[in-house]
Amino acid sequence: MLDRYKNIIDNELEKYCKELPKLTIYKPIKYILQLGGKRFRPSLTLLATDLFCGDPLRSIKESIAIELFHNFTLIHDDIMDQAPLRRNHPSVHQKWDVNQAILSGDLLYSLVNKLLASSPCQTIEIHQLFQQTAIEVCEGQSLDIEFEKKEDISLNEYVKMIQLKTSVLVACSLKIGAIIGGARLKDANLLYDFGLNLGTAFQIHDDILDIYPEKEGFGKQIGGDIIEKKKTILLIELLKNSSQEDHKSIQNILEDSRLENNFKVAKIKSYYKKYRVLDIAEKTKKIYFDKAISSIAKINISNEKKLLLKEFAMTLMSREF
Amino acid sequence: MLDRYKNIIDNELEKYCKELPKLTIYKPIKYILQLGGKRFRPSLTLLATDLFCGDPLRSIKESIAIELFHNFTLIHDDIMDQAPLRRNHPSVHQKWDVNQAILSGDLLYSLVNKLLASSPCQTIEIHQLFQQTAIEVCEGQSLDIEFEKKEDISLNEYVKMIQLKTSVLVACSLKIGAIIGGARLKDANLLYDFGLNLGTAFQIHDDILDIYPEKEGFGKQIGGDIIEKKKTILLIELLKNSSQEDHKSIQNILEDSRLENNFKVAKIKSYYKKYRVLDIAEKTKKIYFDKAISSIAKINISNEKKLLLKEFAMTLMSREF
Repeated sequence: MLDRYKNIIDNELEKYCKELPKLTIYKPIKYILQLGGKRFRPSLTLLATDLFCGDPLRSIKESIAIELFHNFTLIHDDIMDQAPLRRNHPSVHQKWDVNQAILSGDLLYSLVNKLLASSPCQTIEIHQLFQQTAIEVCEGQSLDIEFEKKEDISLNEYVKMIQLKTSVLVACSLKIGAIIGGARLKDANLLYDFGLNLGTAFQIHDDILDIYPEKEGFGKQIGGDIIEKKKTILLIELLKNSSQEDHKSIQNILEDSRLENNFKVAKIKSYYKKYRVLDIAEKTKKIYFDKAISSIAKINISNEKKLLLKEFAMTLMSREF
Repeated sequence: MLDRYKNIIDNELEKYCKELPKLTIYKPIKYILQLGGKRFRPSLTLLATDLFCGDPLRSIKESIAIELFHNFTLIHDDIMDQAPLRRNHPSVHQKWDVNQAILSGDLLYSLVNKLLASSPCQTIEIHQLFQQTAIEVCEGQSLDIEFEKKEDISLNEYVKMIQLKTSVLVACSLKIGAIIGGARLKDANLLYDFGLNLGTAFQIHDDILDIYPEKEGFGKQIGGDIIEKKKTILLIELLKNSSQEDHKSIQNILEDSRLENNFKVAKIKSYYKKYRVLDIAEKTKKIYFDKAISSIAKINISNEKKLLLKEFAMTLMSREF
């Protein structure tokens, strides 16, 4: 149901890229923007504006700014994660170098701010919300890096981290769209909560899909998070609940670089089964999903539109988005 | 004469740092802000506000934002330049690591934007000027990186690069201060031109001081730019004006890592003398300095204040600032 908005975003981004200066440092920016992507966040901005005023294009500048900001974080995160690929193509630091990736990311963030400062819809409220969100996204990324080295992470800490790193930008995308659509502050905040909780549920869903995919195949490594020793909700709960003996074995398996990947994944998966961590993850996901759904009911829009939001939330959680 | 403003900035920065969250990722930010520095740019903002309304504190938020932005560029530039030191202390990426330096820089830039969005003096004009300047600073840094590998750089290209990398932020600091002080647009623009040209003259002055210091000593390596093969105005003019034979020798000296540093510097300096490149640099510096001074005359402020600006410009160029 977001396809219509995605097309608008894709067209607008193409125009935007064409108008960028010819200087070398703009090349990585054009490159990453043209790698495609779901355009999930900016589509939500247009959707939210559409919900309240029927004219999604009113928030077109802000939606593009949000997509640019997301891509800025991807360029810098890929450096930090030493990720060689982004959307099946070389990441920016791989195709150019780390310096060009740092600098083109910085430039991209400046372009975001310029775009926001040139919008006819700008308000102090939007500027403040956006910049507070940007701060939180950086804080979330820093927690993610910290967690890599940390032994015990609580479920609360994990949820806080994914909310900062991912969900606040989804929530902000919706709220900015709502404000521009003329929503009352109460409704804009409800949409923010919807986005925050749905984003959280989706991130947990994503952790689950990595090891329990709905469809196998497509050449994607099942259990990639295990191989990377990523602190997913499953691993966090496993480390917390396992017996002392199993805990030690699990650590050994994760650290053993001689083990074959599929074997490693299968071994950890058997521990997941033993300690029923999938149940814990599914339950946690449901808590946040239900919170998201309950926000919808309170928003001052037609029942038809509420149904639309609910369907969107369900589609998001039911497929490999 | 900027000491009074510097004290205001130092106090305000100390308060600002104390109020930052306790999260790990804020540590590098507090660290670099507390390393000191001349606080040159934010002092100019306060000065400009003072000139037009007599109350420098009116632009205190913007001046702090400008100093934060400057420090954000220092953190990221130090990574790109692999600089181990900043103000005689380990640079951020050296004290922490590259990832923490990238991320704390990004966070610092977000804090800049939050500060600007929270100011009671914010206007669309200030937001647009600031973000356009941020873009230009990134463009300048990218040209600087490009020039390292480029053979022939014209004087115009060099001037364009230093203006983007350095002078536009000085100019922007003054213009924002003037706007907040209530200056007419014409006067704010004249102050911008003053800053742009003075910043350019100062950067050329800085190139000259590296090899022809006014005072020797202080343990600073004379000709550090030559050792780093930095494309200063002197080297650019030398490479352009030297005979084919000398050009080759100069390149060989610069590239020869077996040569002792002082010998290398002395050799290149003898070529500087042969081709009188100091004269060219001094002449170019004078052109921009004179342009800066001529802007002052047109600003609608008292003669006393004009004298103050002129004295400031002269002090800046006469000492090792």
